[in-house]
Formats: sequence, C-alpha cells, structure tokens
Amino acid sequence: MESRAARLTLAYDGSRFAGWQLQPGQRTVQGVLEVALEALAGEPLRAQAAGRTDAGVHAEGQVVGVRLPEGRRLPLKALVQGLNGLLPEDVAVREAAFVPDGFDARRSARGKRYRYRIWNRATRCPLRRGTHWQIFPPLDCEPMRRAATALEGEHDFQAFRSADCPAKTTVRRLDRVAVAPGEPGEIVVEVRGTAFLKHMVRNVVGTLVEIGRGKRPEGDVPRLLASRDRRLAGPTAPAHGLCLMEVYY
Amino acid sequence: MESRAARLTLAYDGSRFAGWQLQPGQRTVQGVLEVALEALAGEPLRAQAAGRTDAGVHAEGQVVGVRLPEGRRLPLKALVQGLNGLLPEDVAVREAAFVPDGFDARRSARGKRYRYRIWNRATRCPLRRGTHWQIFPPLDCEPMRRAATALEGEHDFQAFRSADCPAKTTVRRLDRVAVAPGEPGEIVVEVRGTAFLKHMVRNVVGTLVEIGRGKRPEGDVPRLLASRDRRLAGPTAPAHGLCLMEVYY
Repeated sequence: MESRAARLTLAYDGSRFAGWQLQPGQRTVQGVLEVALEALAGEPLRAQAAGRTDAGVHAEGQVVGVRLPEGRRLPLKALVQGLNGLLPEDVAVREAAFVPDGFDARRSARGKRYRYRIWNRATRCPLRRGTHWQIFPPLDCEPMRRAATALEGEHDFQAFRSADCPAKTTVRRLDRVAVAPGEPGEIVVEVRGTAFLKHMVRNVVGTLVEIGRGKRPEGDVPRLLASRDRRLAGPTAPAHGLCLMEVYY
Repeated sequence: MESRAARLTLAYDGSRFAGWQLQPGQRTVQGVLEVALEALAGEPLRAQAAGRTDAGVHAEGQVVGVRLPEGRRLPLKALVQGLNGLLPEDVAVREAAFVPDGFDARRSARGKRYRYRIWNRATRCPLRRGTHWQIFPPLDCEPMRRAATALEGEHDFQAFRSADCPAKTTVRRLDRVAVAPGEPGEIVVEVRGTAFLKHMVRNVVGTLVEIGRGKRPEGDVPRLLASRDRRLAGPTAPAHGLCLMEVYY
C-alpha cells in the first residue's frame, strides 16, 4: 500500500521503560508507540527513533519517523490527538509533521541536544528523585564548567564510551558542553553534538562530577581523550538524570 | 521521661500519600515519619505538622514538631541522617533544629508559602504529570496576575473554602498572590499568607485559571469575596500541582 512519511516529536518519562528499543517481554517506548500506531492505523507500523535512549533515560524531544498508510488520510492534528488518547500517561506526542520520502529519523539527524540534571544538596530531594542525579558532597561548578569546554570540538571519545558500544569509529564532534547552575541546588549539563557513542553523555557527566568534587584535576580531560582508555575516565552517571531534549535536522 | 523539643523540615512527593495526617489503613506522611522516629528513638513519638497537606499535595518545606526523649541524646546531624536512612524514597528530612519548649509547629507558625504549578501546553507533558496541572487551552497570564492582586490583604475567604472546612472563622490574610510565567509553558502561582482555609489555595487557582481562559472577567474577585458563596468561585484545582514551600516562624 502507498504510504507517506511523517515524523513525530515525543516526550516521555523514562522511569518505567526499558529504553526506547523494542525488546521481547519488556515495556519499551517503541513498543507502546507501535501498539498505539497500529490501533490508529489499523495495521502494524514501524517507528524509528533518532536516538535509542537507554532504560531510564527521559525525552522532551525525541523524534520518530513513521510511514503512514495513504489509504487512511489522517490529518496531523487528529494523528497527534488520537495517539495521545491511546498512549499511556508516561508518553506523549508533542507534534507531528509530514516529511520528504527519504526522511530517516536517525540518519537524517544533523545533531542532538541532551540535558543532564544534578541535584547537589546534603539531603535527598523526593520530588526530583526521578529526574536528577543526587550528589551529596558540594560540587564546585566552575572547574566543571572549564573542564567541559575541553570536550568541545572534534575528538576521539573512546575513553567515554561503554565497553559494549557497537560503533565502528569513535571520533565525534561536540558543539557545546555547558555546565551551569539551575535553580538553587541544581547543576545542569547541556551537551550538543552531531552524534554520540553509547553512554557518552553519562560518562562525560560522571567525569565532570569527579572534577567538581575535587577528586580529579580540572585539566584532566585532554589526557583522558588522548588515552583512549575507558578505565581512566569517571563512572557512568545514572540514566534518570539524562533527557534527550532536541534533535536537529 | 524528659524530652527536648525539635523541629524537622520535610520534603515529600505527595503522589503516593493519602496526605499528611495519620489515617488507619492509609499510607500517610505522618505515618511513615512516626515509624521512622520510633525506630530511631526506641519509643513511639508523635509528629505534629505546621500544615496538614491533603492527599497528593507535595512539600519542599513542611515543618514538623517532635519531642525527642532526653535519654538518648542524638546530635541533630545524626537525627537527620538516621531518619533519612529509615524513611522511604518519597520523604526526606532536609534539616533539624532544637526549639524552645513551647514550640508548636502549627500554632507558632506566623505564615506559610505555597506554590502551584500549571503546565499550559496543547499536549500532555509526561515528565511534569506528577507536579503540574495540565491546562490544554492557552491561558492569558496577565489578567490572572491582575486578578490575583485583588486577593491580597485581609478578606473573608468563605467563597474559597471547601464545604467541609472545619474552621470557625473565614477571615484570612494573604500577603502575596503572584502569578508569573516559569520555564516556557509553565505558569506558577505563589501564595503567601498567615493562615489558610481548607482547599483555599486550590480554589483560588481554579478561579484564576477560569480568568486566564477568559471564562470569567478579571475583575470578578471582589464580587466573589463579597458573595461568601463557594458556588460562585471556580473549581478546586487538582492536588498534585500544589506544594507547601515554606513555613515562617
């Protein structure tokens, strides 16, 4: 049957999902979205995301490509409302648009922006436990900010990818790595780049937090990049602090 | 046994609580706190809150009075850490302080500050579904802001209290009712006052939202106050948008 390419912008609370990607027996964002798409379209549809977020990672602006059957000409507004009526409360479609036939949510993307949120107080914060990494000892934001700028530009990020990262090459370009205070108690790390290795943002944040705690010198980043050794960089920051904010095309 | 008066500042995510107050067979904040206090003190202790928040209402700065047995002289820091180790993840003690013997968390309070958060976008926001009231049609913030100022000062708030409010008098003083945009898509209502009637903040917010939607004239507040008629004011805004931010002594 003829079909027409569309893209959906999705927001989700990653807490109760085993990540984006379809996995048998697991609740995934792709899984619940494809159930809703099939209910609306009357036939199975495949959804392809710009970024396959890990278990627990949130999204404000995930982008998903889908081919809609031409037979049922559904206006975009009805598509958004229909899907939102069918989706569970932890996923929502923010908008929908038709795109040229060659559109590929993943390959057509020019870049992505992630936000990582840290809650830096001596006591737990119940209302932020699902969205922030709680760090009890005080972090010094300024060394973190300066260290982050050393990550900007094109580098070999071998030292910042997970052991099971399947990518063949490890050179990536980060356009912006910014560390800034948010509301009182909050530190926000924003990372924008063309493409990312597995756990790359979380490994960057884990390393910056060690710098903020004074456990690692702020000038350490160039040495880590040059080492290409994952064991030298910091720990992987937890998934629930991370949010995919935007995908650029 | 001798005892010493202390006050605890609490934060909690109200989502899974049937409110502050002890109720048989229900999970309440007072219930889980008293369990933790007894485990730490070795004897049952009673906790008294400044404000008995309703089911679903959150807190960043609830204040609780408790009499600690003198027998076990526990430093305040150990008290905070001990309680936080015993409390579930949706409640935390932010700080503790010794207070004069006559301290009564409720009666000694000079005032309280609440925040109500609205998410005003055409689509649901999964990451804010537990903390914001989702309003789909666009709200006009300016009329809401102007209407809110008419609530400031000393007034009879009979029209803004719930039918089952037990208070004998209905005159209260609000020092500040401020409506302002927060992050993009967010509208924040801040209310500071000496004392509050049951559902008063939520009824105020429900009325302001009708004004923001243009369903009610912005000059309506003086008429509502004068009417002393609950049926004339707006609906009760949902509990999950409300947060007790601070108690003043």
